[in-house]
Amino acid sequence: MKAAYYQGDKSFFITDCIPQSPNAHEVRIDVSYCGICGTDIHIYRGHMAERIHPPQVIGHEMSGTVAEMGVGVEGLQIGDPVVVRPLDSCNHCPACKAGHHHICQNLNFIGIDSPGAFQSSWNISAQVLHKLPLGINMEIAALIEPLAVACHDVRLGQIRSGETVVVIGGGPIGMLVSLVAKSKGAKVTLAEVNPFRFDLAQDLGINAINPAEDNLEQYILDITNGAGADAVFEVSGSKSGIEVSTELCRTRGRIIVVAIFPEPQPVNLFKFFWREIQMLGVRVYEPEDYEEAIVLADSQKLPLEKLITSVQPLEALSNAFHSLDTNPNNLKILIKCSD
Amino acid sequence: MKAAYYQGDKSFFITDCIPQSPNAHEVRIDVSYCGICGTDIHIYRGHMAERIHPPQVIGHEMSGTVAEMGVGVEGLQIGDPVVVRPLDSCNHCPACKAGHHHICQNLNFIGIDSPGAFQSSWNISAQVLHKLPLGINMEIAALIEPLAVACHDVRLGQIRSGETVVVIGGGPIGMLVSLVAKSKGAKVTLAEVNPFRFDLAQDLGINAINPAEDNLEQYILDITNGAGADAVFEVSGSKSGIEVSTELCRTRGRIIVVAIFPEPQPVNLFKFFWREIQMLGVRVYEPEDYEEAIVLADSQKLPLEKLITSVQPLEALSNAFHSLDTNPNNLKILIKCSD
Repeated sequence: MKAAYYQGDKSFFITDCIPQSPNAHEVRIDVSYCGICGTDIHIYRGHMAERIHPPQVIGHEMSGTVAEMGVGVEGLQIGDPVVVRPLDSCNHCPACKAGHHHICQNLNFIGIDSPGAFQSSWNISAQVLHKLPLGINMEIAALIEPLAVACHDVRLGQIRSGETVVVIGGGPIGMLVSLVAKSKGAKVTLAEVNPFRFDLAQDLGINAINPAEDNLEQYILDITNGAGADAVFEVSGSKSGIEVSTELCRTRGRIIVVAIFPEPQPVNLFKFFWREIQMLGVRVYEPEDYEEAIVLADSQKLPLEKLITSVQPLEALSNAFHSLDTNPNNLKILIKCSD
Repeated sequence: MKAAYYQGDKSFFITDCIPQSPNAHEVRIDVSYCGICGTDIHIYRGHMAERIHPPQVIGHEMSGTVAEMGVGVEGLQIGDPVVVRPLDSCNHCPACKAGHHHICQNLNFIGIDSPGAFQSSWNISAQVLHKLPLGINMEIAALIEPLAVACHDVRLGQIRSGETVVVIGGGPIGMLVSLVAKSKGAKVTLAEVNPFRFDLAQDLGINAINPAEDNLEQYILDITNGAGADAVFEVSGSKSGIEVSTELCRTRGRIIVVAIFPEPQPVNLFKFFWREIQMLGVRVYEPEDYEEAIVLADSQKLPLEKLITSVQPLEALSNAFHSLDTNPNNLKILIKCSD
């Protein structure tokens, strides 16, 4: 087997290893594909040094097949296609006790806080596996993790058919939120300034606006007869994105904070009061979001294949990270981890 | 009759007038008491010059009795005790069409945008009246308007019995939110730095903390076994208040923005994402909140009389405003408008 170890300083080394038999209640997976997430780029840039201990295998957006099972594993067979829901909760903190295991206060995020999937063979607890339908496209299956993020965001945002939804920021998550909201019957407008992503959104069938060229606020007022948007997803992580969110929202509208804002941002709290706006923070996913994402991915109803900019071998991992780090004309790069 | 006209520059003049007979669908009310609201103080300080047209009678926290009825008024009798719900909605804007009449986009707030209740006799549309139970204490009845604000805030904040609630700021609305949340069975802690208000909160039976002397965040963690508060009401309008709100909230907790923040404030959006916190803006009240406030005021279950710092005649209106403007050791001053 081969594994890619992040060693800090924007570099990985690839090495041959001997696969280990899985422990009790664990499964060894042949990893098919693993996508590079925005969080992986943060790691690459050295922004998450307190959680990463190089040399470490990272990666969490994967698809694979069951290769070997430890004792006590039930409900799986060798060869089953699977994905990992990479959240390992403590089960005893206040968040877990309240049923919010996915935002456990001591969460082990697999692939960040513990070894991940940029390797051909991966031993992992059977508890975090979701079985996939036979015959599913394994490249598309590697998008289930980010798709589950979008399903969670849209579910918590309570998006209903016919609602006007604005998505600010057309990275992979913004695109997926747009597609999932559209699949619920929402009228979606994506705001994106990058021409590559703007064009891709339109190719995906998403109505896109470039707020640097067109007046997004006036456009939303026009299409809602002066009411404003029912929901705004802030996925850009930008100061201007959160500023415009309060301007776009109708009375009792919802702002869904998807992006990670490292620093506090000025928020127009008067507008919250004046229009009784709601803001919801959303993070990762719950098991039902994974199940929804699996059904959506298998249904082939969404043009998910168009989100994949390229598929590259494990040996090209450093180049793939460098490309995502420096070239905005990329969306999702998948790494083919085993043959 | 007598009326108090605000003439700008922190001053009023009192004048004798001749009562006018009410128009069709209007009622002439003998105003019993009218409280001075924080918004009235804003007007007094000149902060709302774009909405006020001196000389103008202001005031909206009133109780009174029906003195005369115009044609077409039904369901009322001369002598009925009433309160005014001072919201006159346009019924055709997007907010009204969505059923949110109380936050109408063209709202006429009676007593601000049109003449108010600091007069002995007041002509007003019968549509905005709520009939009171016979025999209700008319001083307490003048607190129904701010009490309805608190009922609205607690209802939209979805406060349930047994929840841990923090109220930041012990002005009249903060005190009322605390009392209403307590009446729902919540465990309420009020944060207040002013010694007069701190002592008054304790006298009202509200658990109070002075965050300048005690560690509010640690206290809430201690009483919730490390979870944090279920809901935080920001009623202080202070930068430190909104800052501490995100620190106090449990996972999936709610921050309810009651205060008016004239300027955007730094908000820790990372915490919203990390803990899936919700924030809700709340403003004024809906008819059901008025009905709830009337029942609560009439029940005598809340120590509302202790909120009244003093009752003063209409002739003392300027002094009463001056006192509230300059002396924080005041809570609610009522003006006796007719004998």
